[in-house]
Amino acid sequence: MKRRPRAVVIGAGFSGMQAAQSLSKSGADVLLIDRNNYNTFVPLLYQVAAAQIEPELIAYPVRTILRGAPRSQFLRAEVQRVDFADQVIEADSRRIPYDYLVMATGSRTQYLGVSGAVENAFPLRTLEQAIALRHHILQRLEQASQTSDPVLRQQLLTFVIVGGGPTGVEMAGTLTELKKAVKKDYPTLDLREMRIVIVQSGDTLLNNLPSRLGRYTARKLSRLNVEVMLNMRVSQVSAQTVTFAEGSCLPTTTVVWAAGLKAAVPEAAIALEQTDKQKVKVRDTLQLIDYDNVYAIGDLAYVQQQGKPLTGVAPEALQQGVAIARNIRRQIKGKDPQPFSYFNKGRLAIIGSYGGVGKIGPVLLTGFLPWLMWLGVHLVYLPGFRSRLLVLLSWLHSYGLGDRAIRLILSPSPLQRSIPPPQVSSSQVSHPQIAKFQQHPTKTPLV
Amino acid sequence: MKRRPRAVVIGAGFSGMQAAQSLSKSGADVLLIDRNNYNTFVPLLYQVAAAQIEPELIAYPVRTILRGAPRSQFLRAEVQRVDFADQVIEADSRRIPYDYLVMATGSRTQYLGVSGAVENAFPLRTLEQAIALRHHILQRLEQASQTSDPVLRQQLLTFVIVGGGPTGVEMAGTLTELKKAVKKDYPTLDLREMRIVIVQSGDTLLNNLPSRLGRYTARKLSRLNVEVMLNMRVSQVSAQTVTFAEGSCLPTTTVVWAAGLKAAVPEAAIALEQTDKQKVKVRDTLQLIDYDNVYAIGDLAYVQQQGKPLTGVAPEALQQGVAIARNIRRQIKGKDPQPFSYFNKGRLAIIGSYGGVGKIGPVLLTGFLPWLMWLGVHLVYLPGFRSRLLVLLSWLHSYGLGDRAIRLILSPSPLQRSIPPPQVSSSQVSHPQIAKFQQHPTKTPLV
Repeated sequence: MKRRPRAVVIGAGFSGMQAAQSLSKSGADVLLIDRNNYNTFVPLLYQVAAAQIEPELIAYPVRTILRGAPRSQFLRAEVQRVDFADQVIEADSRRIPYDYLVMATGSRTQYLGVSGAVENAFPLRTLEQAIALRHHILQRLEQASQTSDPVLRQQLLTFVIVGGGPTGVEMAGTLTELKKAVKKDYPTLDLREMRIVIVQSGDTLLNNLPSRLGRYTARKLSRLNVEVMLNMRVSQVSAQTVTFAEGSCLPTTTVVWAAGLKAAVPEAAIALEQTDKQKVKVRDTLQLIDYDNVYAIGDLAYVQQQGKPLTGVAPEALQQGVAIARNIRRQIKGKDPQPFSYFNKGRLAIIGSYGGVGKIGPVLLTGFLPWLMWLGVHLVYLPGFRSRLLVLLSWLHSYGLGDRAIRLILSPSPLQRSIPPPQVSSSQVSHPQIAKFQQHPTKTPLV
Repeated sequence: MKRRPRAVVIGAGFSGMQAAQSLSKSGADVLLIDRNNYNTFVPLLYQVAAAQIEPELIAYPVRTILRGAPRSQFLRAEVQRVDFADQVIEADSRRIPYDYLVMATGSRTQYLGVSGAVENAFPLRTLEQAIALRHHILQRLEQASQTSDPVLRQQLLTFVIVGGGPTGVEMAGTLTELKKAVKKDYPTLDLREMRIVIVQSGDTLLNNLPSRLGRYTARKLSRLNVEVMLNMRVSQVSAQTVTFAEGSCLPTTTVVWAAGLKAAVPEAAIALEQTDKQKVKVRDTLQLIDYDNVYAIGDLAYVQQQGKPLTGVAPEALQQGVAIARNIRRQIKGKDPQPFSYFNKGRLAIIGSYGGVGKIGPVLLTGFLPWLMWLGVHLVYLPGFRSRLLVLLSWLHSYGLGDRAIRLILSPSPLQRSIPPPQVSSSQVSHPQIAKFQQHPTKTPLV
């Protein structure tokens, strides 16, 4: 009997997950490797960071996804080395041979050389980062509610978002919504002091969409009292301030980094030919230039369509996962792989407060309809019936009541920045109401 | 105009939370202080640890609870000192005077002098501890699925619970249920190798209930393949083993500590007269022996009823919260406080797999009815409509399908023990299936 071919997929994001599922019907034994035992539904990360949904709802166990995929296995490990010549992977002191390899290691945050950004800004790419950001934001609110120093309070209540792409816009929008919930919990806090600033280096937001939609987004955010700063570059981030390239600065303890990303090329594969954002060059079949049996997909791969690079959205990754499974199936049968072609069903972006934008074919949409479509599409794609139902109920709760349910601050995780509230003296830290307690003059027992 | 009296409540557990809510209608200004900004619904902690419900669902924001309580405020701080003579509290470098003080600081884990327990056993008293235990358990399963060494696998799959009270029984029961979900995700793991052991120093489980119910519980757990060890004492806990007083030992990497607790007396108040489990002595009105305007309630207070000490369940704490608010209202009006009397509506304990026990008045219940009642009662008492609905749906999902939805392992928190998988050599760590990948003899490309 002929031995079944072995396919290894590295990375359980959108593209890797889809590749493993599709491959399991290809006649190959499939091994999926990831450092996490869950798949993160990245588009909803910002809602975790904004205390809107539970982190568990967008983290679906890889093993559960693979239940329905025969001949597939999961290995929780970190890949150290890929030996393309010998066709062997090294992962946590295991040597794993492969016939076919699918690299889907995704992307990581790119700090663009901005000094202090690595240490002080909050990226929003992983579940742990989203949780850390949530705790940080909630802690700023607690601290702001306890200080009577207006300067310090203003600094604690200033939230700066660097990057005007979808993540930046979503984060700015959701913070304006969070305000309403905060209002109910901190009745003594004057929320007109809460500043939300979005900084974009180019002259339009959402620059992967037509500029008309970018302009609409900027207007909508402005109406929600977000300060939209276009054509501005951040030059430095400290624990207390963000500094702009033209010299001005803004006191803030919260800088969300939604500015750039680069491909997360496995250390062992750095010899591969790389292009823009360190993405790996591939043929139009998604095979590596030099290796017929190795594919790169998702954010890792540099793929062009009609002369323009793909933008790194989930549908591209999913379609690539399906395509390489089909190509490997063809290779197993002795046929040639076929070029990948992305079918663009349209693009949607959510802004917040019942507003969004979208482009379906030639039609541009703004307002409530694309907002609702965004939520609908993401609900449908979210894996797991239980998660879907619970997220739906969470949305009905938060959008219906203008409330946020989750506001626990857990003890610091390793990812949480320990930014001390600046120059806080004992006398400063006193909420007007608590100050009343402190000035309590008499100590006569009433009984 | 007469100044309104000021009441300060330390601790936002069952008793403190209830005290603050009831006090806010007493005519006093109320300040509630806790180190966390949320109230933990402790009875469901074991379900968080067993990957059944999201931690956020049982952590309700204190500020949200206090929305409906006029004249009440919340301060997130750690209390360092109480000066009973001057009627001042020191919390995070603030001095806060009070007219009435309610101490509701609860209890903490008591390791009973067992060597290694502090470092190696997993307590289950706080949300962070429950999350840490969840990650630990899920990690053991991942590791067990990857090793081909039967001795190591047995050690990874042995879960020892120390303590046969409600928490210990709940934890043992839920682990037997978790097995079913694990079965689906790790089809290659032989779950007959999974050992769940509950160790009780006395001769009956649930010793606060009639012994007939304890015997039923032991039989039920045994039928679920839990090894019930009665009259056994643990003498030592290491990262690899648990050792018993009579000399035997058991290789395990997971010891859940559900054995003992003692009152969490604020450091400043240690001069107070203490009794059993370091609980603070109070009058029958719940006032401190020496201070008319200071109350101690909940797990902190030693309260007797008909010559027997109260057992530390939630209804006792809630009723005490109401009682001291009434007493303080009486004191404000110049009347004498009244003795507290606990009205016992009954006791319920959940075992698992649709079984529970209960005592309502003179009636003893076993089986499905008390199981269902336990869930119902806890659903009703869980704060927050959203949490209640989401927990209900989670239960329908997990009890209906025998599945567990949440299985993400996040990166280690400070609370998570970093227990290395013992003596793992590269050759040992190989799942039979992954071993097949490794033994792959030829490296001929198929294309």
